[in-house]
Amino acid sequence: MAKQLIECVPNFSEGRRPEVIEAIVAPFRERKGCALLDYRADADHNRMVVSLAGEPAPVQEALIQAATVAVSRIDLNRHEGGHPRIGAVDVIPFVPLRNITMEACVDLAHEFGRRYHLETGVPVYFYEEAALMPERRRLEVIRKGQYEGLKKDIQKPERHPDVGEPELHPTAGATAIGARKFLIAFNVNLGTDDIGIAREIAKKVRASSGGLGHVKSIGLALKKRGLVQVSINIVDYEKNALYRVLELIRMEAKRWGVPVVETEIYGMVPAAALLESTAYYMQTADFDASQVIELRLLEMLGDEK
Amino acid sequence: MAKQLIECVPNFSEGRRPEVIEAIVAPFRERKGCALLDYRADADHNRMVVSLAGEPAPVQEALIQAATVAVSRIDLNRHEGGHPRIGAVDVIPFVPLRNITMEACVDLAHEFGRRYHLETGVPVYFYEEAALMPERRRLEVIRKGQYEGLKKDIQKPERHPDVGEPELHPTAGATAIGARKFLIAFNVNLGTDDIGIAREIAKKVRASSGGLGHVKSIGLALKKRGLVQVSINIVDYEKNALYRVLELIRMEAKRWGVPVVETEIYGMVPAAALLESTAYYMQTADFDASQVIELRLLEMLGDEK
Repeated sequence: MAKQLIECVPNFSEGRRPEVIEAIVAPFRERKGCALLDYRADADHNRMVVSLAGEPAPVQEALIQAATVAVSRIDLNRHEGGHPRIGAVDVIPFVPLRNITMEACVDLAHEFGRRYHLETGVPVYFYEEAALMPERRRLEVIRKGQYEGLKKDIQKPERHPDVGEPELHPTAGATAIGARKFLIAFNVNLGTDDIGIAREIAKKVRASSGGLGHVKSIGLALKKRGLVQVSINIVDYEKNALYRVLELIRMEAKRWGVPVVETEIYGMVPAAALLESTAYYMQTADFDASQVIELRLLEMLGDEK
Repeated sequence: MAKQLIECVPNFSEGRRPEVIEAIVAPFRERKGCALLDYRADADHNRMVVSLAGEPAPVQEALIQAATVAVSRIDLNRHEGGHPRIGAVDVIPFVPLRNITMEACVDLAHEFGRRYHLETGVPVYFYEEAALMPERRRLEVIRKGQYEGLKKDIQKPERHPDVGEPELHPTAGATAIGARKFLIAFNVNLGTDDIGIAREIAKKVRASSGGLGHVKSIGLALKKRGLVQVSINIVDYEKNALYRVLELIRMEAKRWGVPVVETEIYGMVPAAALLESTAYYMQTADFDASQVIELRLLEMLGDEK
């Protein structure tokens, strides 16, 4: 059987203390069979997004170790930041990459969720493809009210966790564990300090309020820089491309005479997602990914194995 | 020693007869250690561009076989097409890719040129980094007057070949063999049938008439489609990016109210060249190639070997 390969993108509620950040990622560096693709801490969000790739077993081992560090070092009662969160280990999505189905990733999420709760005591919610209740497919439903709100509401039957007692871990809150398609995190920074504009544009862009399908977005302030940000997740990049989201934001921003200052692709991105946007802007006809030398060499190296 | 890897991009003066095209590329498919990355025949140009990658020895073996087919099947006296050419095998550039220096590729070009002449009788000119005379660094100098002009002028001392007697092969002409950096072939098709506009824009864009450095360009007619084309070679993509060339052409075309209908990236392209243009159009700040999953996996697979 061909080697199974998954991506995993755990999000930790720590974007400011370098020593904690490094302690959390250390197990991903050290575990054979688990590749630390990327990790990015954001001080405004006070959050770190890690990208891993590898075979399911070593990825899970490294995750347990890293999660244990995060649970012991992060106190949600003292945490503040611009991004919604419910726990020290906020979300753990498993993503199929190669030779593994979505169904197998759902099983992986469930198996890992039970083990994680046993070892850390943190209650677990299953989301997206791994959701056990239809309404919990959406992360927003699970994270409603964030840590502070969930602390009060967790005893309500509709907010009971999927694994564990209806009580938050005293410092590490709760964790959402799921399975999903590859997600692109994409931020568009606007040249204004008016958060209202970012929120208004985010609303126009996101699927939930009638914008582009498969797109989630919120408006955030980047206070230190005096800018605002439309922070976007494209949850199915094959159905809605980066360029379409960006051009829609550029168009809306014109209404206020606000420029796009820069964009950020956060974490990992599949080559196909970038190439589709390149092809749009450059009007390339009949361009094929196999014209990219590195993609051809990857294909050939893969075949030789 | 790490495996040496070169690219080689032979251009053959045949873009119309499928059976000849297939006979020329067959040796590249069959030879182990030589990867046929891409081959594209263009009927308007009446020319085929092949991209190979591999270790120097098997690439040379396959080249000799393919060249022998081209020399026997293509008659320059009956050849017509929109692209300048002097021979059935028009140019053979060797390009360093990995673990090999430009100097080693120059040696390779000289060694191959002498062998090619011995086996086919076709006279050889060395160009770019492999040039033995400074003025022959430029392919335009070698190809001046094309096959028809060179036939008359080859006896002049300044046009004597570097290898062989001062006489063209009766049907296969001459061949330019060189070493160079990676070259991007990029065409911009314009929505007009006025060849004068394509020529005017090509002149504004190319380095030789004061345009962008490291850029060559000519204007061509795409008669069947009723379009014209600015056909571009970017000879050092690290110094001049695709987007800069395209935007300059879009700007110049506006003077005549002519739209860019589409662009074509011809043959292979390094990921970095595309990513630089993506970053421009999408205003991505701090984007790093190692955020592209496939490039990271290629790096990791390479390390394991």
